Amino acid sequence: DRTIDLAVISGDGIGPEVVAQGLKVLTAVLPQEVKLETHEYDLGAKRWHATGETLTDAELEKLKGHDAILLGAIGDPGVPSGVLERGLLLKLRFAFDHFVNLRPSKLFPNTTSPLAGRPEIDFVVVREGTEGPYVGNGGTIRKGTPHEVANEVSVNTAYGVERVVRDAYARAQARPARKLTLVHKNNVLVHAGHLWKDTFDRVGREFPEVSTDYLHVDAATIFLVTDPARFDVIVTDNLFGDIITDLAAAVSGGIGLAASGNINPTREFPSMFEPVHGSAPDIAGSGKADPTATVLSVALLLRHLGFEAEAARVDEAVTADLAERGETARTTDEIGEALAARVAG
Amino acid sequence: DRTIDLAVISGDGIGPEVVAQGLKVLTAVLPQEVKLETHEYDLGAKRWHATGETLTDAELEKLKGHDAILLGAIGDPGVPSGVLERGLLLKLRFAFDHFVNLRPSKLFPNTTSPLAGRPEIDFVVVREGTEGPYVGNGGTIRKGTPHEVANEVSVNTAYGVERVVRDAYARAQARPARKLTLVHKNNVLVHAGHLWKDTFDRVGREFPEVSTDYLHVDAATIFLVTDPARFDVIVTDNLFGDIITDLAAAVSGGIGLAASGNINPTREFPSMFEPVHGSAPDIAGSGKADPTATVLSVALLLRHLGFEAEAARVDEAVTADLAERGETARTTDEIGEALAARVAG
Ligand SMILES: CC(C)[C@H](C(=O)O)[C@@H](O)C(=O)O
Ligand SMILES: CC(C)[C@H](C(=O)O)[C@@H](O)C(=O)O
Repeated sequence: DRTIDLAVISGDGIGPEVVAQGLKVLTAVLPQEVKLETHEYDLGAKRWHATGETLTDAELEKLKGHDAILLGAIGDPGVPSGVLERGLLLKLRFAFDHFVNLRPSKLFPNTTSPLAGRPEIDFVVVREGTEGPYVGNGGTIRKGTPHEVANEVSVNTAYGVERVVRDAYARAQARPARKLTLVHKNNVLVHAGHLWKDTFDRVGREFPEVSTDYLHVDAATIFLVTDPARFDVIVTDNLFGDIITDLAAAVSGGIGLAASGNINPTREFPSMFEPVHGSAPDIAGSGKADPTATVLSVALLLRHLGFEAEAARVDEAVTADLAERGETARTTDEIGEALAARVAG
Repeated sequence: DRTIDLAVISGDGIGPEVVAQGLKVLTAVLPQEVKLETHEYDLGAKRWHATGETLTDAELEKLKGHDAILLGAIGDPGVPSGVLERGLLLKLRFAFDHFVNLRPSKLFPNTTSPLAGRPEIDFVVVREGTEGPYVGNGGTIRKGTPHEVANEVSVNTAYGVERVVRDAYARAQARPARKLTLVHKNNVLVHAGHLWKDTFDRVGREFPEVSTDYLHVDAATIFLVTDPARFDVIVTDNLFGDIITDLAAAVSGGIGLAASGNINPTREFPSMFEPVHGSAPDIAGSGKADPTATVLSVALLLRHLGFEAEAARVDEAVTADLAERGETARTTDEIGEALAARVAG
């Protein structure tokens, strides 16, 4: 019999509420012979307010032992900007070498899009997760004076770019449309852009069935609102990926439906799955939070752990649930129950 | 009698066609006693193919002597990415210290928006133009090997950030809504983000009538498609400004209507005005290019040179022309003629 040893970081605000539903669906979909063990880690804003700690070395070490991590949302307005982002979220992504930040965008039936005519949207962004302007290689001199200079360094390596580009080609190869678009800004960021574009072209020769395209990031934002159907798989750097995936979520049903996986495909370290939305303190406790993004993140988790059939069942449950839902608003718990019932049935 | 001494860089593709209409409207709107002198500079892809040159020191020196520059569009697919961008466009922006890159977004009557319900859109982005990741401070080691490292450095100075933030506050102060939004990513790019946010807060104390807001760039892209009416003036860094102004153009009638000014408010060097769109070689010569973005850029030019009433007349002509246009497509020349007739009348 197999056991899934799952670390859970419920976090702040609506985090615990949506994670509870995600776990409900996960439990319901797993075959009886698979045992689910969960270990909650008290991390996030509440913990920081209480202890001043974001993530200790001992916790990081302990987290390493799990099969995967499910994260709800972290943060509240009382924590200075950057403390939990750099000290917890990014620390985990970097420490566990989550170089594939996977963010599917799909316009589900019966959801609203700000785009006129509700175009077909079904693509996935492979965002690099361990390099670029996110590395934290920056600094300030003469802080607070009229002569302050603040730098941020984007670091891009052949090793880092090639592995994520290769992963994106493999994902494109496995999809019906077999199309991969590189998004960068190689006419301005010529050094990083050169490395990305060269790697993209070179690795592409190993995937002759995948058709390719290049877009500057500014042009990509235009197509995301005027012709999102043109995208199949997108590969891009850490910062551009951050920006275009929020836009992609917005046009495909909203951030409340956007799932993500911070994946280490080598399985050397546990991968981490989380909804793209934040902790939404304004609606915490009200039962208004939509757990669907967390449930879709659970599908990504299942797929990563090799439970392909179960992952597909979760995806189908979400599609059916959205297609058949009525006009009346449902609570967080009601949506979770409905999805759990569907995957179990 | 006054003379406007204008440098013209018509450039490639549809550049010369749209610039011709821009100059037609400019000539028509200027008071009789103002003389317009234009000096064409042969710069762009054609020139590069012929001579290998992008912009010589002598040309740069000569350009300094003009009152302003009107640029059409440069580039063609035969020029390697980055050559004309870094060697010509960005070189001019940096050499002439164009620290205010001004990009208004307005959804004109009778234009199409990809957004459902055509929300109210009328805001202006003040994009920093001389710092950030655009400075060209990057480099590559071990190029072409598996150990290549390519870096890009974003440089941000108190001097550079403060002057553009101050300019943005002044613009917000002069508008009815008096609202300024800072867009950055200060939870990840903590050094640059700290400088921007501190400067924004400090300078804001001098503008108590301007209400302020801060958004991460990823969140800003969401609001640009879900609630663009919330924006009045946005101030942001060079790269974030590049990205969000293309998105802003897309949601407000398309890139064919987007104007921009690369402005040096101190008037130490000539400012440069250009449509945001590219050279569109596929439609060059067909009469299909819309010169409206160039004409709107001429309005920005007029305003910069102190011809406020004339600038307003050009803006009004564009609004009226779009509101009253029929169903049949018009040629580049027909649109230019119609606008020239309106401003002259
Ligand atoms: C919270 C922040 C550090 C994070 C990021 O910028 O990656 C978030 O925006 C995301 O996209 O997951
Ligand atoms: C052509 C390119 C250098 C330029 C930029 O990135 O600034 C363009 O995209 C723009 O927005 O004017």
